[in-house]
Amino acid sequence: MMKKRPLILITNDDGITAPGIRALISVMQQLGDIIVVAPDGPQSGTGHAITINNTLHLEKISKPDAAFEEYACSGTPVDCVKFAVSEIIKGKPDLCVSGINHGSNSSINVIYSGTMSAAVEAGIEGIPSIGFSLQDFDWNADFDAITPFVKEIASKVLETGLPEGTILNVNFPKLKREDIKGVKICRQAKAIWLETFDKRKTPMGRDYYWLTGEFKNLDNGEDTDEWALKNGYVSIVPVQFDLTAYHAMQFLNSWNL
Amino acid sequence: MMKKRPLILITNDDGITAPGIRALISVMQQLGDIIVVAPDGPQSGTGHAITINNTLHLEKISKPDAAFEEYACSGTPVDCVKFAVSEIIKGKPDLCVSGINHGSNSSINVIYSGTMSAAVEAGIEGIPSIGFSLQDFDWNADFDAITPFVKEIASKVLETGLPEGTILNVNFPKLKREDIKGVKICRQAKAIWLETFDKRKTPMGRDYYWLTGEFKNLDNGEDTDEWALKNGYVSIVPVQFDLTAYHAMQFLNSWNL
Repeated sequence: MMKKRPLILITNDDGITAPGIRALISVMQQLGDIIVVAPDGPQSGTGHAITINNTLHLEKISKPDAAFEEYACSGTPVDCVKFAVSEIIKGKPDLCVSGINHGSNSSINVIYSGTMSAAVEAGIEGIPSIGFSLQDFDWNADFDAITPFVKEIASKVLETGLPEGTILNVNFPKLKREDIKGVKICRQAKAIWLETFDKRKTPMGRDYYWLTGEFKNLDNGEDTDEWALKNGYVSIVPVQFDLTAYHAMQFLNSWNL
Repeated sequence: MMKKRPLILITNDDGITAPGIRALISVMQQLGDIIVVAPDGPQSGTGHAITINNTLHLEKISKPDAAFEEYACSGTPVDCVKFAVSEIIKGKPDLCVSGINHGSNSSINVIYSGTMSAAVEAGIEGIPSIGFSLQDFDWNADFDAITPFVKEIASKVLETGLPEGTILNVNFPKLKREDIKGVKICRQAKAIWLETFDKRKTPMGRDYYWLTGEFKNLDNGEDTDEWALKNGYVSIVPVQFDLTAYHAMQFLNSWNL
């Protein structure tokens, strides 16, 4: 008996022309039928933003005889997922994959990441979902080294599903294929960005700023994503969107408000 | 012995001119010295977005003899907190409060909310932090009804602090003061937005869309923020930024990747 090919939604936050999403498309074509809905330009650092105070545009950019449909969206990565589910697929795909991001989304970066927010949005909508990121900001990063892992992890999710309310945050170290030691299931490392604002002058003499910062890992644990990446492993952190800090409820109830 | 007045950072996502932040300023002036750094326009639904592909502007808008300093920022609510800590206060305030939002940020809305993301950013930076939201989108909503609760909750946080890595998501029902039954410590209700895109035509005949949607509570629990608000209580959900789904790690480790 032929098994129906799964339908896989692909998105990202670097924009539809990024090499990272092209690598992801190549892998997913081996696993199922695909639909691509991605931002029409870079959307890094957009977090879980949605577009409610502005209009949205959606363009089908694939040719009628293409192997799969591709859409460019003027909105955020989260808008892309909402568009795909509500207007294009008009239902749930079997899997949503986001990335492959040019740059790591490990540790606290999960919160700022458009790549991961797209994956989380799919998770909220009940779709098994994975965000993939490579610890290399280079536009011409070596995605070939990691595609076997991408395929294996996506296959596992298609095969067994994910625990309810769980999304995978997968990060890859910048290493050659043969130097990657394996895969580790991790927790999110505690870390912060130490910000500095680069102050400059416009040609008219007005001050303006660029946000810059330095990532600082505050976590010495050997069970974190930061540790795994630093030691040559692929990190997988299961991520949830129930943000309730259950352990704090008892303390707050002692306030007797 | 005189106790030093605490320093309180105030921000929001509806923009610095919103009545909600004015109400919050009035309350916080009773509790400490304040600094206001808020977006120069509406930033609802921006989530945890930061501005990395664009320039930022910061204007001091308070007069030299004003009772407190006020800054308008061209960035997102999260940018405002980063600016305040890094460039204005050059250190940590004793408390950060965000809001009072015009509209609820209960349940899954915590993820899309600029108000809550500003509070979470402060929490990541180690600052005790609270987001306040009123279940009323009206620009002229009745904030007076809830200011006694805002003052009590903020006082408690100043007095006792919060468990590490925890931020408060406080939501108020749209009720008269005397009809509010009390305060409940809650968990985040499971809910989703059922999206529809309102398709229109530009004057040039090109399709464009507005994101709209209907909120759907999927959670029958009586310990949720949705239940509390519906039953006349103020809801407080402790929120965390460690998104690790610890309960899923055992399942993932069984994959033997």
